[in-house]
Amino acid sequence: MYYYASSLTRLIELFARLPGIGPKSAQRLAFHILSLSREQVEDFAQALLEVKNNIVTCPICCNLTDISPCRICGDENRDPSVICVVEDAQDVIAIEKTREYKGQYHVLQGSISPMEGKGPDELRIKELLQRLAQGEVTEVILATNPDVEGETTALYIAKLLKPLGIKVTRIAHGLPVGGDLEYADTATLSRSLLGRREMG
Amino acid sequence: MYYYASSLTRLIELFARLPGIGPKSAQRLAFHILSLSREQVEDFAQALLEVKNNIVTCPICCNLTDISPCRICGDENRDPSVICVVEDAQDVIAIEKTREYKGQYHVLQGSISPMEGKGPDELRIKELLQRLAQGEVTEVILATNPDVEGETTALYIAKLLKPLGIKVTRIAHGLPVGGDLEYADTATLSRSLLGRREMG
Repeated sequence: MYYYASSLTRLIELFARLPGIGPKSAQRLAFHILSLSREQVEDFAQALLEVKNNIVTCPICCNLTDISPCRICGDENRDPSVICVVEDAQDVIAIEKTREYKGQYHVLQGSISPMEGKGPDELRIKELLQRLAQGEVTEVILATNPDVEGETTALYIAKLLKPLGIKVTRIAHGLPVGGDLEYADTATLSRSLLGRREMG
Repeated sequence: MYYYASSLTRLIELFARLPGIGPKSAQRLAFHILSLSREQVEDFAQALLEVKNNIVTCPICCNLTDISPCRICGDENRDPSVICVVEDAQDVIAIEKTREYKGQYHVLQGSISPMEGKGPDELRIKELLQRLAQGEVTEVILATNPDVEGETTALYIAKLLKPLGIKVTRIAHGLPVGGDLEYADTATLSRSLLGRREMG
């Protein structure tokens, strides 16, 4: 019985459930919230709710977006003949930060992972095939993570696209193998995009 | 222009303003919020608002509380003859976790800090004197932080209380000098409480 106020205990518990936040950080964050003005806390609560209420999946690229279609799919300055296939929305952001890539994206929303019981049917591969069927795309860049699941997913999609006669490339292994795309530094990610090679 | 959804950008910015959260962690946290159910996000937003709405200052010990007086001041099993003076609410929690202390607390809400332009008048010292004037207290333990501000505050209060004839003790320097009380491990803090010595 540590005599916290109960609403404070509750907030500390909720912070401690977030990824990368331990019990001491959670306590620190909760007390920081207490030190904010009422307006700032209301802003924060509002921002949490808005993210959940406003963000939808883009009907074209399956990325997260607050407008439909998303800003990238709706941007006429981007090359519609190249699609970069990634696992999730954070990977799109990581690649956008390199400023090297001017094509479109397709977000699979995961990777093939037998360990987690996740097969190709749970990924947005069907949507990718529909886009390719429109005939405008000449290259598909497979930018899934350089780990076992990402490689498996890339191989699976490369095999699937082979009959379509579209050029399929894989981002170069400038990325450390076994790493996570979203944490790569911008320079490595740039080199890995530029050094992509044809697959299959 | 990184093509984040704007509500997501906003949430990432807000997370990044919290203490100890860098830009990458902020992004990770915002995406984690997106992955939660609507109910879980509403819970979180609610917890933030409740902390701000429900938490008040205890009229007796000046600790943060959601009931008035707070649970410790209202607990008849606690020794009313000893008051442990700390800088802030997190210090109360740190001491409670040692399970060594069964007396009352007094939360100064800061320390004397000429650097920050904070003098004794901004601390809850007047409230402490009012409590002592009731004559029930026989010992005051000064458990301010073992840094310059905390020592200054302890010396100031010790001098102030000397004429009252109350025993004034300072927690032992088992704590690393220059450290922060709220981050001390439980064992060190226990020893430091047990080894307290009379002041002045």
